[in-house]
Amino acid sequence: MTKYFTEEGSVEAVQARMGDDINPRLKQVMASLITHLHSFAKDVELTQEEWDTAVEFLTKTGQICSDVRQEYILLSDVLGFSMLVDAINNRRPPGATENTVYGPFHVLNAPIRQMGDNISLDGKGERCLYEGRVIDLHGEPIEGACVDVWSDNADGFYDVQQPDIQPQWNNRGRFITGKDGTYRFYGIKPVSYPIPDDGPVGKMLTALGRHPYRPAHMHYLVTASGYQRIVTHTFVGDDGYINDDAVFGVKETLVAPFEHVNDGDTIWRSPFDFVMVPEGDTTA
Amino acid sequence: MTKYFTEEGSVEAVQARMGDDINPRLKQVMASLITHLHSFAKDVELTQEEWDTAVEFLTKTGQICSDVRQEYILLSDVLGFSMLVDAINNRRPPGATENTVYGPFHVLNAPIRQMGDNISLDGKGERCLYEGRVIDLHGEPIEGACVDVWSDNADGFYDVQQPDIQPQWNNRGRFITGKDGTYRFYGIKPVSYPIPDDGPVGKMLTALGRHPYRPAHMHYLVTASGYQRIVTHTFVGDDGYINDDAVFGVKETLVAPFEHVNDGDTIWRSPFDFVMVPEGDTTA
Repeated sequence: MTKYFTEEGSVEAVQARMGDDINPRLKQVMASLITHLHSFAKDVELTQEEWDTAVEFLTKTGQICSDVRQEYILLSDVLGFSMLVDAINNRRPPGATENTVYGPFHVLNAPIRQMGDNISLDGKGERCLYEGRVIDLHGEPIEGACVDVWSDNADGFYDVQQPDIQPQWNNRGRFITGKDGTYRFYGIKPVSYPIPDDGPVGKMLTALGRHPYRPAHMHYLVTASGYQRIVTHTFVGDDGYINDDAVFGVKETLVAPFEHVNDGDTIWRSPFDFVMVPEGDTTA
Repeated sequence: MTKYFTEEGSVEAVQARMGDDINPRLKQVMASLITHLHSFAKDVELTQEEWDTAVEFLTKTGQICSDVRQEYILLSDVLGFSMLVDAINNRRPPGATENTVYGPFHVLNAPIRQMGDNISLDGKGERCLYEGRVIDLHGEPIEGACVDVWSDNADGFYDVQQPDIQPQWNNRGRFITGKDGTYRFYGIKPVSYPIPDDGPVGKMLTALGRHPYRPAHMHYLVTASGYQRIVTHTFVGDDGYINDDAVFGVKETLVAPFEHVNDGDTIWRSPFDFVMVPEGDTTA
């Protein structure tokens, strides 16, 4: 390697510039990033015009971001990068409930509700009973687990997206399990919806021949003292987008039953158990 | 591979989603980008916290961009990515003048000047005579070549960075060669300067134990009908930063002589020949 930059020695030239006394993890991450970025440019022989396009795309993606819009998370999501990072950091033993993407619509401190309450406050949608147990890998119930749930409404929007239209906390709530570990609440059968597609990421999806839709899903954040938190969804299996979620969130084990019932106003019942793993157990 | 996303099959899951009828080059570039991005996350087992940091960094990098500031180009520059793309797209036969980074400070339509003119208009700095020939690979002079030159002033700033302080077109000019292919003008011996380091990229350089300085250099854009354009610098060899240009622009063949002379006001002389290659010749 010469002391100056060359096409062949490009990776080493940039890596060699990092200081000896810097954070070793940062050094490891950046060395790998440089290696893979340069390999990418070499593999495709990236043209100057394509580089110009990339700079413009990355700039616009940053500039559309605001307090209520995070286009870089969207970009990471549609490239499967968010799901990959989630998978790497949440390997669990067989039988444990799997994670999926968090999404941008969780809100802290949703109301604590009583078992059997209805979280749908706007009267729209098809009423659905959600019930099941929070258990450990041996099937033992977990007492005091918090099941924090949120979904879109029948029009495909979360309450925070329509603060002037939907009641606050519409389709949100937290439920604390008792000794038997069961949970039970009414909501609606959620509907599929597009991720925001009026920005650079939406344009990219169009150019790639992809649509922006997510299959219908309920969001869950399940926590219990001493257990790994579960960030997940349950999916409606007969949704038209179940096999091509725009953000790759679907996993086989997360497709939940939605059984047709006719119990008064209730049209659906979706049973699902959450199986938690003690903190520190990373047996995949 | 299952039909859903898995950690192992992450690349294939995302690639498979691209349409069949899209631009084939876009498909090739994105397939490679997805491969390398996912390999990066897997190699370092990127944590969720690191992903959060990356999203915030990329967002801020976009948001600091303006008409006069392009932080994404800076990011590409300091990662050696700009130089790599330039190298890939400008492979030339031995003996030809090599390219280097364009930089953000070129201005179109600088004044056409007469050979022997002085481009330093603010009276600052050490006067230097620049002269040489524009020739082909056989040493034959090229008539009608345009030598478009720009440099910082003695304080390390380009005129466009200080529109209220420096005269317009300070240290800029275009020179058209005659039959003998020679060029000759006066300027100053340029000085080293930092790239803008008050934004996300500057913070990153600090975290990596790197400085933001570029060794002193003259910028050249040399064009002639039927020849590949040359975008390059000549570098001052005794500059303290010659071995660690923050943007990796230095090449062995671009370090030019700066000879001490004492010819009236003139203190330096820097001879350099530009060797051009016909369009279409990509023999590296």
